[in-house]
Amino acid sequence: MLKDVVRTKTYQNVIYKNKFLFQNKVVLDVGAGTGILSLFCAKAGASHVYAVECSHMADMAKQIVETNGFSDVITVLKGKIEEIELPVEKVDIIISEWMGYFLLFENMLHTVLHARDKWLVNDGIVLPDKASLYLTAIEDAEYKDDKIEFWNNVYGFDMSCIKKQAIMEPLVDTVDQNQIVTNSQLLKTMDISKMAPGDASFTAPFKLVASRDDYIHALVAYFDVSFTKCHKLMGFSTGPKSRATHWKQTVLYLEDVLTICEGEAITGSMTVAQNKKNPRDVDIMIKYSLNGRRCIISNVQYYKMR
Amino acid sequence: MLKDVVRTKTYQNVIYKNKFLFQNKVVLDVGAGTGILSLFCAKAGASHVYAVECSHMADMAKQIVETNGFSDVITVLKGKIEEIELPVEKVDIIISEWMGYFLLFENMLHTVLHARDKWLVNDGIVLPDKASLYLTAIEDAEYKDDKIEFWNNVYGFDMSCIKKQAIMEPLVDTVDQNQIVTNSQLLKTMDISKMAPGDASFTAPFKLVASRDDYIHALVAYFDVSFTKCHKLMGFSTGPKSRATHWKQTVLYLEDVLTICEGEAITGSMTVAQNKKNPRDVDIMIKYSLNGRRCIISNVQYYKMR
Repeated sequence: MLKDVVRTKTYQNVIYKNKFLFQNKVVLDVGAGTGILSLFCAKAGASHVYAVECSHMADMAKQIVETNGFSDVITVLKGKIEEIELPVEKVDIIISEWMGYFLLFENMLHTVLHARDKWLVNDGIVLPDKASLYLTAIEDAEYKDDKIEFWNNVYGFDMSCIKKQAIMEPLVDTVDQNQIVTNSQLLKTMDISKMAPGDASFTAPFKLVASRDDYIHALVAYFDVSFTKCHKLMGFSTGPKSRATHWKQTVLYLEDVLTICEGEAITGSMTVAQNKKNPRDVDIMIKYSLNGRRCIISNVQYYKMR
Repeated sequence: MLKDVVRTKTYQNVIYKNKFLFQNKVVLDVGAGTGILSLFCAKAGASHVYAVECSHMADMAKQIVETNGFSDVITVLKGKIEEIELPVEKVDIIISEWMGYFLLFENMLHTVLHARDKWLVNDGIVLPDKASLYLTAIEDAEYKDDKIEFWNNVYGFDMSCIKKQAIMEPLVDTVDQNQIVTNSQLLKTMDISKMAPGDASFTAPFKLVASRDDYIHALVAYFDVSFTKCHKLMGFSTGPKSRATHWKQTVLYLEDVLTICEGEAITGSMTVAQNKKNPRDVDIMIKYSLNGRRCIISNVQYYKMR
């Protein structure tokens, strides 16, 4: 994931170009991994950084911190944020790279919010502090045939019962921007510094207007994040018109193929909720309808990211 | 995996072009998945097929068997081969697609051998019945830089301690045949119809002779499987000179870069063993030495597939 240049370079720029935020501040790095963000913060002048990582990577991070001569500034703590104890009362900054596929998959946001409520000073800052989820619609006949219709005839056998399951699984893949048929709709903006954990579950309406005559095979979700406390607004987008990241986009195939004319709109709503059995999974419901000249349709579809 | 055409088409051809093997025979399909091999066997004239699958895919397989009208010929059994009971005393044929990365990863071979010893008639056949593991050597400067040397300088920080871990992890990837610098050495042939489970752990010597002056960055392992009971020998290879499969090849990076001249040989041995803690993992040890004009070296490296 360090090789995702968009991601890591953005964090690096945020930190190195905004040293005023870090000077003599105490930082908590949530889900530190190799410790790269902690190292950036230490180099930018943080007085101390607590790097919390629950996987075996914590041992590597300790070694990396030592090798790079930051043992006096960075303390690596192996454990869950909910369970570790910090030797300070509060921290000034929480930094984290918590975003999952479809922004919310694996639900590490919950851990960041927990850390915020427990450890952040009142006027402390969270980096990044804004995350927005968007929706657009694409033509994707070729891939839909390959991924979904494939099951209609598998070496001569009808395996169409697998289609239902296949269509329920959002596909994480890179969408070519030429496939985009409609505008993008902002679904939800989350203010990480203020939101409640429950705000990550929501229903949002959308209206996607076609910019050309085409067919729609899937809706596509993506997110951007921003760091509004920087001297100049910084951030990145994982949308199909931006440089690719390891998050790619999330493709939600529709059972129907929509025959849409320029100017016509798909309207509906998306409901996003944490799965009750497995809180790392995300349940998505999409209601949509098109009342067009060549196609009148309305449907509800359920998806599960797991 | 059904989309791996080399794989599925070979099984299909083996079955459809050798119907004489299946006519009125009882077949056991080990790890049946969607049930595709069972369907092939049923269509080829098997009197009955028991499709054993332990995952939730068994439910799909049941539905697929019904949809395609084979409920009277194929019985899907959900469970582990070690635990299920068949309503017959013995089967005539065991068919399975058990091969993992590096042939042995995930160790499903063990399950097939268990099924063979428990359920196969004395003169029964196992499909496939031969599997061979090969080794060759490649030039791979670019990728080694990207995967291994990368850790020397990560956004200005020394993370070289991760290199040791990275080099221990065999990389499953497609090798370009132009990268191949030496001959291929057959390491081990397994006769699935006769071998003991312990035969999957072995030490085999190798001698890899350079066909040009070049550098060697990695050894590459791959396998082929064959069906020797067919009217004509059938099978497929997962080697870098054959059409790509989902198994790709297994790249084992060397700590050293070997400067090899045409005609010189890397000699050594590969030891393969089931991991004691986790039997699905594979431990690999490679001893190698080169006594060349431009490079004299000898080393031992350990790898873990997990």
